[in-house]
Amino acid sequence: MPGIGDTIEVLDHGFVRLDAAEATDLSVVNGARVSFLQMKESMDGKDEGLIRFLMREGHASPFEHNLFRFHVRSPIAVAREWMRHRWSSFNEHSLRYSAAVEDFYIPEAAQIRTQVGKPGAYRFEPVPPTVASQAQDLLGKHYQEAWNRYQELLEMGVARELARLVLPVGIYTEFYWSVNARSLMNFVSLRNADQAMWEIRQYAAAVEAFFGELMPVTHAAFVEFGRKAP
Amino acid sequence: MPGIGDTIEVLDHGFVRLDAAEATDLSVVNGARVSFLQMKESMDGKDEGLIRFLMREGHASPFEHNLFRFHVRSPIAVAREWMRHRWSSFNEHSLRYSAAVEDFYIPEAAQIRTQVGKPGAYRFEPVPPTVASQAQDLLGKHYQEAWNRYQELLEMGVARELARLVLPVGIYTEFYWSVNARSLMNFVSLRNADQAMWEIRQYAAAVEAFFGELMPVTHAAFVEFGRKAP
Amino acid sequence: MPGIGDTIEVLDHGFVRLDAAEATDLSVVNGARVSFLQMKESMDGKDEGLIRFLMREGHASPFEHNLFRFHVRSPIAVAREWMRHRWSSFNEHSLRYSAAVEDFYIPEAAQIRTQVGKPGAYRFEPVPPTVASQAQDLLGKHYQEAWNRYQELLEMGVARELARLVLPVGIYTEFYWSVNARSLMNFVSLRNADQAMWEIRQYAAAVEAFFGELMPVTHAAFVEFGRKAP
Amino acid sequence: MPGIGDTIEVLDHGFVRLDAAEATDLSVVNGARVSFLQMKESMDGKDEGLIRFLMREGHASPFEHNLFRFHVRSPIAVAREWMRHRWSSFNEHSLRYSAAVEDFYIPEAAQIRTQVGKPGAYRFEPVPPTVASQAQDLLGKHYQEAWNRYQELLEMGVARELARLVLPVGIYTEFYWSVNARSLMNFVSLRNADQAMWEIRQYAAAVEAFFGELMPVTHAAFVEFGRKAP
Repeated sequence: MPGIGDTIEVLDHGFVRLDAAEATDLSVVNGARVSFLQMKESMDGKDEGLIRFLMREGHASPFEHNLFRFHVRSPIAVAREWMRHRWSSFNEHSLRYSAAVEDFYIPEAAQIRTQVGKPGAYRFEPVPPTVASQAQDLLGKHYQEAWNRYQELLEMGVARELARLVLPVGIYTEFYWSVNARSLMNFVSLRNADQAMWEIRQYAAAVEAFFGELMPVTHAAFVEFGRKAP
Repeated sequence: MPGIGDTIEVLDHGFVRLDAAEATDLSVVNGARVSFLQMKESMDGKDEGLIRFLMREGHASPFEHNLFRFHVRSPIAVAREWMRHRWSSFNEHSLRYSAAVEDFYIPEAAQIRTQVGKPGAYRFEPVPPTVASQAQDLLGKHYQEAWNRYQELLEMGVARELARLVLPVGIYTEFYWSVNARSLMNFVSLRNADQAMWEIRQYAAAVEAFFGELMPVTHAAFVEFGRKAP
Repeated sequence: MPGIGDTIEVLDHGFVRLDAAEATDLSVVNGARVSFLQMKESMDGKDEGLIRFLMREGHASPFEHNLFRFHVRSPIAVAREWMRHRWSSFNEHSLRYSAAVEDFYIPEAAQIRTQVGKPGAYRFEPVPPTVASQAQDLLGKHYQEAWNRYQELLEMGVARELARLVLPVGIYTEFYWSVNARSLMNFVSLRNADQAMWEIRQYAAAVEAFFGELMPVTHAAFVEFGRKAP
Repeated sequence: MPGIGDTIEVLDHGFVRLDAAEATDLSVVNGARVSFLQMKESMDGKDEGLIRFLMREGHASPFEHNLFRFHVRSPIAVAREWMRHRWSSFNEHSLRYSAAVEDFYIPEAAQIRTQVGKPGAYRFEPVPPTVASQAQDLLGKHYQEAWNRYQELLEMGVARELARLVLPVGIYTEFYWSVNARSLMNFVSLRNADQAMWEIRQYAAAVEAFFGELMPVTHAAFVEFGRKAP
């Protein structure tokens, strides 16, 4: 059961850590109950019904009175999708003024996949084991060379902000992400989903695990009504 | 020294209560220090300089990784200005489905004021005591009649959402407001300011008191660099 | 067929006017087609299918590359609900520095309604004609008195920002509202809906009429897939 | 004088094109003048003073009633900084389902720079011409190899969304960006500025050129009062 301060490892060198949170089912209940001036000190059984009602009817604003602050380590390719979620706050490791870290994402063999189907209805299938192995080798070799060139540019005196141009989007970055439950559910609905890239889905599943632990009634209602953000 | 759970009384029947918070100066420091991957467990003296640097240079995003959840009671006229602050979350007492509460704002005599000066450079001066007293009487009488008519409409069977049409913007409402320190500073910079309406200024001063208590270094930097949100 | 510059009258003294717009179905198509670098100069038949696909699958961002700028006149009670829509821009008639205008909302007799049913499942029914007539009279009388007292306070020299305290939420205000199609659809889905207050629903229907005229394919897809914002 | 439909070339393979706009100084004037119900059909001399007043006093909301829709081509390293601006809308070329384009950013020799100074006060100086030339060669060689490996992975059947892992952040991407003048000024104030990365500064200067052309009075006031977004 992951909680505040805990870390869930994701992919080969990544993680999602819940750095801090002020997030309870009660905050949803009171966000709604201020409508009729009947806030509570603690939840009772009827309030579970209230949360389910809010989720089903799409009354979204009561889900915003809380905070999850995550510390995340992911490949840049994953971070780029993540940072398109605008109703939340980000700070990221800067490659302008700080050096990169030598960690790159190489998918497990079982995750080296090919894309089949037509536009609008793509799906993915594993490649044969020999191809997977070749692809892993190629990635590993490329990452090593990219790293060497990055170092070479730095040694030549080239500024970090330019040297980074050679770094591939498979390299890991780190960031802080602060988000409320409404925006978190939007993220999870889109990213812990069939059509999402498999890698970001692993991260979104970790985010969802923390969410389910801290706000179990809200999470259950989210699942019950089709995993759509209200 | 107001903290989480405390209430500051404002005007004749209003208040600002800090319902919950996850807000520390350290969250700002780490929001910035993730840029160079040197987060900390606790602050030291150098970090005060970092926060001052961020404020002075307008590096705003590290100030977003926190939450203040307020419970507020104010006249509708004040709440209307407050709710124009979009980077935050609101839930309010609904007069569609819930009855109004018989509390109305009557300014103290010293706050019955007249407006002097030209467009773009208005200022306010007290009216003579007899005028202040007359104005208070008129407000009190009007509020009483508005309340009676509201009750009358309800007794006739008219829906609450229509009966409210007679209620004046001097009536009190209640709401929850969740906000991060960056957006809170924007609110305070505009509303605890000379050109703000005196009444919302009292509320913004209460908000600022909580902010200063929970994030003293950030607040000191905010004051030092001209009370502008970064 | 309402277009740019046209006005739709709403309620007894209100309106929705489309002041300006840069909003076409093509902007949605190209917002999506930049994903595969195949933007177009004009739409063809296949693009209707693309818009329907985006709406059905909840790909929301391509619907944001446009602007509707409305000029609205509505009772304050309606404007208060409207301005809770945060992903858009507002400027409103100020009662701090400018005088109110003597126009108040009195519902037609057929719209004087009573509320029946239980919390979470309210509905509305007309009151008997004699009650409707009584309620209209009472509103008219109250508005007149509120206006007289507002004038009286002004004549006593009381500042406009205080004199407004007596004004009821049934008085008309005016505002500019700038919004993109995604946020507009969110507004319409919540406000041109059964559970919305009847009065705001009339405004939302007017907004939807302009939307349907300027972006007919997007609007048709919005209707086809359940009138939910993507 | 760049206008709607025009393109400004930036860096070696990039551009900023103004795809569409509904943006005039008059929209600012009327956004402000709705406060006192005196909107206008066209601007006169006094309105220039009004815009300067709004800018100087930080009255920001009247600057939001307009739209600029840009089509941009930039290196991923630049796009990543750009997309952190949340009060605006983006759609970008997808490397999940669409193939990359073989264009990479190689700085001109004069722009191959080294970083000097201390944290918080870095500045940049050109490297010696021979180093610049070496760095350009190294970048060119690396880009070619990265491209070859990307093609190799695709030929092996690896999905595009995985093959992209080898692509460096120096590769070009394309995106649509829709933004209002307030958010645009925030972008320009931070990115067409001394402390910004030189490359994004070239883009921000192009954005500012379009802004100055369409909203000359607003742009002049922005410059006059210190190039800070209101």
